[in-house]
Amino acid sequence: MVQVAVMGAGSWGTTVAKVFADAGNEVRLWARRSEVAEDVRDNHRNSAYLGDIELPESLTGTSDPAEALDGAEIVVLGVPSQSLRGNLEKWTEAELIGPDASLVSLAKGIEHSSGLRMSQLISEVAGVPSERVAVLTGPNLAREVAQGQPAATVVACTDMDRAKLIQAAVAAPYFRPYTNTDVIGCEIAGTCKNVIALAAGIAAGMGFGDNTAATVITRGLAETTRLALEVGADARTLSGLAGMGDLVATCTSTLSRNRRFGEHLGKGETLEEAAASTKGQVAEGVVSSQSVFELAGKVGVEMPITEAVVGVCHEAADVQQVMMGLLGRSRKAE
Amino acid sequence: MVQVAVMGAGSWGTTVAKVFADAGNEVRLWARRSEVAEDVRDNHRNSAYLGDIELPESLTGTSDPAEALDGAEIVVLGVPSQSLRGNLEKWTEAELIGPDASLVSLAKGIEHSSGLRMSQLISEVAGVPSERVAVLTGPNLAREVAQGQPAATVVACTDMDRAKLIQAAVAAPYFRPYTNTDVIGCEIAGTCKNVIALAAGIAAGMGFGDNTAATVITRGLAETTRLALEVGADARTLSGLAGMGDLVATCTSTLSRNRRFGEHLGKGETLEEAAASTKGQVAEGVVSSQSVFELAGKVGVEMPITEAVVGVCHEAADVQQVMMGLLGRSRKAE
Repeated sequence: MVQVAVMGAGSWGTTVAKVFADAGNEVRLWARRSEVAEDVRDNHRNSAYLGDIELPESLTGTSDPAEALDGAEIVVLGVPSQSLRGNLEKWTEAELIGPDASLVSLAKGIEHSSGLRMSQLISEVAGVPSERVAVLTGPNLAREVAQGQPAATVVACTDMDRAKLIQAAVAAPYFRPYTNTDVIGCEIAGTCKNVIALAAGIAAGMGFGDNTAATVITRGLAETTRLALEVGADARTLSGLAGMGDLVATCTSTLSRNRRFGEHLGKGETLEEAAASTKGQVAEGVVSSQSVFELAGKVGVEMPITEAVVGVCHEAADVQQVMMGLLGRSRKAE
Repeated sequence: MVQVAVMGAGSWGTTVAKVFADAGNEVRLWARRSEVAEDVRDNHRNSAYLGDIELPESLTGTSDPAEALDGAEIVVLGVPSQSLRGNLEKWTEAELIGPDASLVSLAKGIEHSSGLRMSQLISEVAGVPSERVAVLTGPNLAREVAQGQPAATVVACTDMDRAKLIQAAVAAPYFRPYTNTDVIGCEIAGTCKNVIALAAGIAAGMGFGDNTAATVITRGLAETTRLALEVGADARTLSGLAGMGDLVATCTSTLSRNRRFGEHLGKGETLEEAAASTKGQVAEGVVSSQSVFELAGKVGVEMPITEAVVGVCHEAADVQQVMMGLLGRSRKAE
């Protein structure tokens, strides 16, 4: 049993907190909003994000980061990638994170201004060596995991011993973690899949069916793999659960936010309209598409699907024209 | 423009005939049943298999194999794998196939008695060198292609020049063929995907969601790739449209027969009940699972998902027990 702090009480943060608790640990979940923290603490629910799913007794809620982080051996960072830097700076300045705690990143993305992957950002901002930063990623739609459906995941850390400690701590009866040392591959895959899911959603919104979806997913993994290998990833990560697995789940599930957002774009809505239709902000893949495309340009990798998403989201390109250009490219060997 | 014979007027055979016609060729479609041939010839429909989809004028139907094959430069073999040998023997004895015709296989499977892949069987039975036999395969659910939705496919032949001729002949505005010389990889992938789709369907029938589906697909491609590499395939085929693409389409689409058949098994039905529920015969993956598992045993490759499907389909194993065993295997590095 270890002491776990989960920072961020959105649907995935809360779900991961539940998994750690179900795996037999003492877990404190930090929520920015006090009403969410109280709901978790008093009602063993997070009604705002997980409906009526019951949370275990060993999981408690707080809106005080110091209370959440006090004595935590594993610190799970579950705040959105856009607010990760700001939050982490505050917690680091106040010296709330223990000197040997493992930091586990749930965030997907590449910071636009700096080009840093989330684990790099965490290492830099928290001032900890990269061997103390791990990544949790895989085909893990929050709602299904929260319901206790069986799922597999990947715990990646350059320090294999630490990866194993986290693996042991997060292994719940319905949640099966695998270890990996390829943090780069896991993070590139996790970032790119949101962009490809947007493209899959756009195609679905335009009325295309399962053949097109499968083609977009296959080509999407191919361009993701090209980029990942170029920046030092291991090909096996891309063909595993953190690569192909997460991509397939995100692109095919109606529970996936990026895929649903893309469907609205495919029907001709603007970013603002799509955000309104999906009752939230702009999807993560919209932001990531630019960071990914910039990185691809820097290392000289062609990413036609990502380029198409950038065109639709950021250059007001006509969605019909862009997608037909993508699907109708000239004949050649595969 | 070339003269094309498509032998077999099921939904996929008819669709491929339509694609060749839409690509500008003269096409004769052979149907075993004369009423189907007449429907195609007189009404430009195949109501039995494709509903009210309209077929082009340049596509005609016949139930006489000699008429279909007369002068054909490309002979597409679209009969089910179980009846391919018998039909091909008759046509070969009667010398109906031209001396330089290209033979294009649509059948997926490994003959149980001989262990031959379909292209090997065709080459042996028709007495033609393997360079004259090609395979057409990819994420191509028949109904969507018949509706003219954009799709990509792979034409594989050990003779690249012949692959290119077929590629040029089958390229329709909505159908984009890529060439490949890895016939082995295409055929192993095409056979295994039906088995994995059964497993994906079984999981869905048991009530598991998209995380589990993505995990089954990812692990399914991994075991397919291990087998394919062991028998001489190229890894790129497996991660391309004929491998991953076809697998994703078949495992996620409700149009896929093997996936739907699996769903019934997952609900606890027997093979006979599932066949009755899906208004047809036993799905192709049921037969293939044994051939694949035998081949895997022969070359020493572990295929846990295939083994589970064999257990459920042929050894009366309890579906709950088999699937939970599969999903709950012990923790390890990926």
